[in-house]
Amino acid sequence: MKDAAVVGILMGSDSDWPVMEQAAKTLQSFGVAWEAHVLSAHRSPQLVRRYASNAASKGIKVILAGAGGAAHLAGVVAAHTILPVIGVPIESKNLKGLDSLLSTVQMPKGVPVATVAIDNATNAAILAVQCLALSQPALQRSLTVYKRKLSLATQTADRKLSRSA
Amino acid sequence: MKDAAVVGILMGSDSDWPVMEQAAKTLQSFGVAWEAHVLSAHRSPQLVRRYASNAASKGIKVILAGAGGAAHLAGVVAAHTILPVIGVPIESKNLKGLDSLLSTVQMPKGVPVATVAIDNATNAAILAVQCLALSQPALQRSLTVYKRKLSLATQTADRKLSRSA
Amino acid sequence: MKDAAVVGILMGSDSDWPVMEQAAKTLQSFGVAWEAHVLSAHRSPQLVRRYASNAASKGIKVILAGAGGAAHLAGVVAAHTILPVIGVPIESKNLKGLDSLLSTVQMPKGVPVATVAIDNATNAAILAVQCLALSQPALQRSLTVYKRKLSLATQTADRKLSRSA
Amino acid sequence: MKDAAVVGILMGSDSDWPVMEQAAKTLQSFGVAWEAHVLSAHRSPQLVRRYASNAASKGIKVILAGAGGAAHLAGVVAAHTILPVIGVPIESKNLKGLDSLLSTVQMPKGVPVATVAIDNATNAAILAVQCLALSQPALQRSLTVYKRKLSLATQTADRKLSRSA
Amino acid sequence: MKDAAVVGILMGSDSDWPVMEQAAKTLQSFGVAWEAHVLSAHRSPQLVRRYASNAASKGIKVILAGAGGAAHLAGVVAAHTILPVIGVPIESKNLKGLDSLLSTVQMPKGVPVATVAIDNATNAAILAVQCLALSQPALQRSLTVYKRKLSLATQTADRKLSRSA
Amino acid sequence: MKDAAVVGILMGSDSDWPVMEQAAKTLQSFGVAWEAHVLSAHRSPQLVRRYASNAASKGIKVILAGAGGAAHLAGVVAAHTILPVIGVPIESKNLKGLDSLLSTVQMPKGVPVATVAIDNATNAAILAVQCLALSQPALQRSLTVYKRKLSLATQTADRKLSRSA
Amino acid sequence: MKDAAVVGILMGSDSDWPVMEQAAKTLQSFGVAWEAHVLSAHRSPQLVRRYASNAASKGIKVILAGAGGAAHLAGVVAAHTILPVIGVPIESKNLKGLDSLLSTVQMPKGVPVATVAIDNATNAAILAVQCLALSQPALQRSLTVYKRKLSLATQTADRKLSRSA
Amino acid sequence: MKDAAVVGILMGSDSDWPVMEQAAKTLQSFGVAWEAHVLSAHRSPQLVRRYASNAASKGIKVILAGAGGAAHLAGVVAAHTILPVIGVPIESKNLKGLDSLLSTVQMPKGVPVATVAIDNATNAAILAVQCLALSQPALQRSLTVYKRKLSLATQTADRKLSRSA
Repeated sequence: MKDAAVVGILMGSDSDWPVMEQAAKTLQSFGVAWEAHVLSAHRSPQLVRRYASNAASKGIKVILAGAGGAAHLAGVVAAHTILPVIGVPIESKNLKGLDSLLSTVQMPKGVPVATVAIDNATNAAILAVQCLALSQPALQRSLTVYKRKLSLATQTADRKLSRSA
Repeated sequence: MKDAAVVGILMGSDSDWPVMEQAAKTLQSFGVAWEAHVLSAHRSPQLVRRYASNAASKGIKVILAGAGGAAHLAGVVAAHTILPVIGVPIESKNLKGLDSLLSTVQMPKGVPVATVAIDNATNAAILAVQCLALSQPALQRSLTVYKRKLSLATQTADRKLSRSA
Repeated sequence: MKDAAVVGILMGSDSDWPVMEQAAKTLQSFGVAWEAHVLSAHRSPQLVRRYASNAASKGIKVILAGAGGAAHLAGVVAAHTILPVIGVPIESKNLKGLDSLLSTVQMPKGVPVATVAIDNATNAAILAVQCLALSQPALQRSLTVYKRKLSLATQTADRKLSRSA
Repeated sequence: MKDAAVVGILMGSDSDWPVMEQAAKTLQSFGVAWEAHVLSAHRSPQLVRRYASNAASKGIKVILAGAGGAAHLAGVVAAHTILPVIGVPIESKNLKGLDSLLSTVQMPKGVPVATVAIDNATNAAILAVQCLALSQPALQRSLTVYKRKLSLATQTADRKLSRSA
Repeated sequence: MKDAAVVGILMGSDSDWPVMEQAAKTLQSFGVAWEAHVLSAHRSPQLVRRYASNAASKGIKVILAGAGGAAHLAGVVAAHTILPVIGVPIESKNLKGLDSLLSTVQMPKGVPVATVAIDNATNAAILAVQCLALSQPALQRSLTVYKRKLSLATQTADRKLSRSA
Repeated sequence: MKDAAVVGILMGSDSDWPVMEQAAKTLQSFGVAWEAHVLSAHRSPQLVRRYASNAASKGIKVILAGAGGAAHLAGVVAAHTILPVIGVPIESKNLKGLDSLLSTVQMPKGVPVATVAIDNATNAAILAVQCLALSQPALQRSLTVYKRKLSLATQTADRKLSRSA
Repeated sequence: MKDAAVVGILMGSDSDWPVMEQAAKTLQSFGVAWEAHVLSAHRSPQLVRRYASNAASKGIKVILAGAGGAAHLAGVVAAHTILPVIGVPIESKNLKGLDSLLSTVQMPKGVPVATVAIDNATNAAILAVQCLALSQPALQRSLTVYKRKLSLATQTADRKLSRSA
Repeated sequence: MKDAAVVGILMGSDSDWPVMEQAAKTLQSFGVAWEAHVLSAHRSPQLVRRYASNAASKGIKVILAGAGGAAHLAGVVAAHTILPVIGVPIESKNLKGLDSLLSTVQMPKGVPVATVAIDNATNAAILAVQCLALSQPALQRSLTVYKRKLSLATQTADRKLSRSA
């Protein structure tokens, strides 16, 4: 039987899935149970509100929200929950995600959205794991291993590439 | 007895009033009844939803919404009503309203926000009057007079300033 | 016999049609009669003026204007009419529509252009329908249906995509 | 008796005069007759058109146009004349003239506006003198003197400031 | 006796304290023990590394880092710890914090910085409390109260300001 | 025998020719004699200086200069001549011409560069023709014809595209 | 036997090599010994510190560092060495290198990074050679030759392209 | 008797001295002889060329150049010398130095300008000292001391500010 999801992955449109899927894969690799939903702050606001309001009580600990353009999803979710909300600004066609970034990060006092780089859903997942790890030593160990692997991957890349003349 | 408001003027914070008050004054000068409220998409989302959902049934025809930074107010209102929503991006301290503008205007397909210039609440009011005038010939005449006055004011300015050498 | 157009769709160049056609299709789906014209604020200014000045008297209620770069079309139209003018900033080759957006939205006091997102002609049409609906209950019902469909489409996308692990 | 103006200095609002006055003073110093007018592309479009259409026939050779925000004045003037039109983007309150600059310079093929730096009306005047000088040898000599003075002023500044340690 | 700090507040320069102090005050109001340090990624990199490397073992759970310009502090801290790192882009003199924001948020895969709005240290503190609250029910209750107060403050502002005509 | 060139077309690199060639073709169509050269403000500064210094005496009336990135060519040419210098900001690979535009247009007092839109060499040529036309009635007539053709082309496009439903 | 490297070429990821390789090739052409390494400020910070701290003692004279996005590599290297550090902002996918540029160049007082154009690793190499040439007359001669070749290449391009009509 | 200057500090206008003076003071504190001059790429181009061309032969080793707006000074100097040229983008009134930065840093292949942060002339001086130190061990020791002082100043600031609660 699957574990109940502890991370909710929301996105404004199914076209955001190729980006947000990276978050799902990353969480998976840490053994963190997740669920993904298409919920639009503008097209299905009631469902966003319902999801955000009920998330904590059904066991969700952290919510990731990806959206582009006038990206209101993360902010609207944050308005309805006290859980940490992590925003992923999705690249927009015309302004290349500058609009998505500013719409996600420039939140007013009292209602933060933890914003990561444009399209960087992997980092949203890592951040979620870091939050969860505060009370789960096993995840701390996994993060330490992950960090070491990042370093080793860089070192391997260096061994392959390093040269001189 | 006051007329029931036909234009709702919403703002995310009372600090936005000096800007949004221009809209109220402009509507007043056209004899259009209005009401103003502080409602925050992030701090009082339920009230925003309730206001937007009920606006039409209580006689509101057009909603103006001013907000700064990650300015979600106009977009969230638009999500809950089929009335025209006019967004006023309010100048933000750091990015001078570029964030407010992009957060307000770059709405996804299906949920428009009619956006005016940064801090230009006067124009939001004029736009509201133009919408109302579609079915109120008296307002059409007022707009024609207003337009003529704009032109005359420019001509007066020209008479005072025009010079040569 | 065709109904007389109530929405005018103007564009600065025929190369803008693929974008502006979305407005036409959207209006069509609401049963709103439209007409489309290529009129340039810079290359055929007299025709723009004539169109804008006569629009109201021939039955046009709302004008949509799409243009790119130093996008003056919507502003020039707005200078010659008291009808609501909705501006669609068209993506420009070099600056990706930032120039089009600022040229369209940053109008001076007294002469608003209701600006929508870059290339989002669909939203310009929805906005036009919202204005017309103020005095046409049938359009209000259509907008309500449209809004419900938007929500349902999101829910369908969610059903297809939602997953967990 | 005053000479007939050969340069027209237009501005969208009388609040632009402190900037545009620099153009007048510069032209004066070259002995080039000018006239200044407040004409708004949005508030008095007919007068703009009339001015631009008649300018050549009444002896105007070059038109300077200063405007801010969605700065359409120079472009609209250029639409109605074959005279060289020089645009001065005026600093706007919120976006510091970036909107004015892009609205002025990004003109479509066939209708150029010769754009100078934000608020740099002096340069607009120099450019006008350079155009007039093409057929007026006296102005060529004045420009040569002016250029030498610029150089000398820099050299004087250098003599005062140059130091070492 | 004071509790051991669970949140570390770092800043690149003591001139950042007026901004970061808001984070301290906010944490205080939640009864969350904090410590504040001036540590520069560029001027005292060894101390940054030492702080970040040892933070977890001495009881720090979340690190807030504020810096301006080429704001590397949060990123460098994140490189040395698996704790959640929250970045506060501090307004820079020339580019108004756009440089600070991009330098803080655009982190590469694997090393996230949870970025909040420019100068919004209050939100960094709230985010820290939200992370801590995941395993401390008392903080959850405090956040719920805080959220209610935000809403009430908006409602009070509305009562004072709301008007109609 | 060819006429002596009256317009000099300079570019910083031969890769700018596809853009600048449009200027040549446009001048050609007006019967204005031109010459084109690759001259770099950074790689062959002496030749730029020599060209600019001697241009007037060999019959050049207007100089067009196209360059990208830190686009100094037009400014350096303007430093060495009293002829009108028209700058064409060429699209740069990374910043899409924003750098080219600002480097070209933001000239200091006393040394203007008449800047046209990014990559719009056609307009640089038209502007040159407008300058020359001040003392050549035949060119005035050609410009009038050109302007009429622009208008007719728009009208033709309108006839093809205009539709309604 | 190879000479010991005097220039270190660092990059944050092996995907930066196609850009940074241009630096290697340029150094090669000047006979300057180099070495290249993949070292990440975020993934292998210890190795960055070690490299930067030891560079001078092992004979490195100048360090080039290329990175994209929140590009901290050059700044972190500069924090650990008194050698000149030259930063190459690498184009990022979404913001086209604007983030990389600002993250690299906007360093605080006391810790400079000599920044070159986005993706312009060739110029980073030339700059390194210019630094080395201060005490190596042979390199001065090579730079003089290089400069002459640049000029000749421009002149050749001019001979091929220059035309008139 | 004063030492011959080894660093040239150039600026486009005497109004740039308050910024560039920081470079002079910093060089002074390292005992590096300097000279300062007002030289404009646009107003006194011949003097710029002469200065740049002769700098090496009269003993100058590094040239610092500060300019604002379309900041061509550093680039033009670099065109005429093989010495390292360090560019200081000076804040401009309207665009806050973004124009100055892009005009200075985005140099084409072959002619680098080592660019520092907007208005950061101190860093230009440090960079110059780092270049000179490559062949002057005494300067290396001074830089090491300077770096230690930077760190100590941060530690002192930390001791004063560090607090907890």
